[in-house]
Amino acid sequence: MSGKYTIVMVGAGNVATHLTYALIKAGHRIVAVFSASEKSAGMLAEKTGTSGTTNLDTLPVKADFFIIAVRDNALEQVISNLGERNGMVVHTTGSVGMEVFKGKFKSYGVLYPFQTFRKEQEMEMGQVPFLIESNSEKGLLKVRKLAESISSNVIDFNSEQRRYLHLTAAFACNFTNYLVSVAESILKEHHIDRSLLLPLVEETFRKIRVGPAKDMQTGPAIRGDTSTMKKHLDLLENYTDWQKLYSYMSELIQKNDKL
Amino acid sequence: MSGKYTIVMVGAGNVATHLTYALIKAGHRIVAVFSASEKSAGMLAEKTGTSGTTNLDTLPVKADFFIIAVRDNALEQVISNLGERNGMVVHTTGSVGMEVFKGKFKSYGVLYPFQTFRKEQEMEMGQVPFLIESNSEKGLLKVRKLAESISSNVIDFNSEQRRYLHLTAAFACNFTNYLVSVAESILKEHHIDRSLLLPLVEETFRKIRVGPAKDMQTGPAIRGDTSTMKKHLDLLENYTDWQKLYSYMSELIQKNDKL
Repeated sequence: MSGKYTIVMVGAGNVATHLTYALIKAGHRIVAVFSASEKSAGMLAEKTGTSGTTNLDTLPVKADFFIIAVRDNALEQVISNLGERNGMVVHTTGSVGMEVFKGKFKSYGVLYPFQTFRKEQEMEMGQVPFLIESNSEKGLLKVRKLAESISSNVIDFNSEQRRYLHLTAAFACNFTNYLVSVAESILKEHHIDRSLLLPLVEETFRKIRVGPAKDMQTGPAIRGDTSTMKKHLDLLENYTDWQKLYSYMSELIQKNDKL
Repeated sequence: MSGKYTIVMVGAGNVATHLTYALIKAGHRIVAVFSASEKSAGMLAEKTGTSGTTNLDTLPVKADFFIIAVRDNALEQVISNLGERNGMVVHTTGSVGMEVFKGKFKSYGVLYPFQTFRKEQEMEMGQVPFLIESNSEKGLLKVRKLAESISSNVIDFNSEQRRYLHLTAAFACNFTNYLVSVAESILKEHHIDRSLLLPLVEETFRKIRVGPAKDMQTGPAIRGDTSTMKKHLDLLENYTDWQKLYSYMSELIQKNDKL
């Protein structure tokens, strides 16, 4: 066996797209692409030199891997409709346990890349942590081989831990990004260039490399500087949502400090 | 004039420490250091080869600059007690207007480095935005000269805009850092290595260089994926504070998306 696999990609969104690129680069062969959206299926298929379909029934019955990379809330439906397949079926989702496959396929597992993906953004996959799981030793070896062909950071992980890890991404990625967007909105309204924020944001996240975020906390809340917090809340007078968010987060930072 | 200044540093905290190092590196001379804490005053003074004091009255009356880099809530008191000084007095604070100096000194201004500092963390000052202001044209030139000797990113900024910029640092730095600490706490409790978060956090903030954070939002909230949000909230069952924070931030992300 050459270690190169034939792969059916079920999904054509952010994760599916970046996985597809990385898999092709590693020498595997994408033999078909499914997406509920004709446009997405067609676009990704075109880039892989294969066929795209919006019909699960027309997918090949046999391949080394069927990788299901669809939205979390579409996953169970796709699994139900996929029918019998001869090959290993994996999903790429943090929030869904491996047991979702139980009794439906013979060989299955999870291939969860712990990263934030957007189609439009290039992504170097080599350092992305891939968290893998399978229903058999043999299956685990096979998923590991696939994952290691695209990343040097492949880790065995059970479904329970994976769920918590997925949750933390909401805090460390989605919510942090939202907070930066709040900062940018305030700056925009006061005609201040958003580029001023960049050195601050970069330093904030450079520090995370150095040690736990808890030890890196700065700002008025951790200092208990109520006069500055009061000033900030006054400036947020016309942004009641963000005023509430500011109060609550400051309260939590002060509470956290006492833990 | 050589462009090298004599400087009295009033304060010995995070900002004062990093400013002092940068100023010495640029060839200026720190002639005295004040801190309310004897230990801090002594430590910083020792590093500058000068004298430290906890008594404002014993500071030199004459210097090119008196830089007040104390906690925001101690600033007004220090200004009141500083007495007459022959030289330019500046503070380094984002949240306090320049008018705090009015009628107290002849020549004054603001030298606000927009960055997060911790004594323990090394800091390359050359890219830090320095936002400057003064009560006179001549004063502005002098502050600019000082600022440009340590950073290539010096910008004239009025007190009003500076207040909003300072506010945004709470969102883009203090609160983002807190969110990462929440993620780390959850991981720790489930025996998952925090280093798994690093590629995700780095990618999140690399994207900020590419375009506005609003356009980079990913995750269940922006997708309207209520089933995943529900799962996350269930996992947070024993963390009611963070559960509340999760709900509120998800709500805001969805609201923001509609703007």
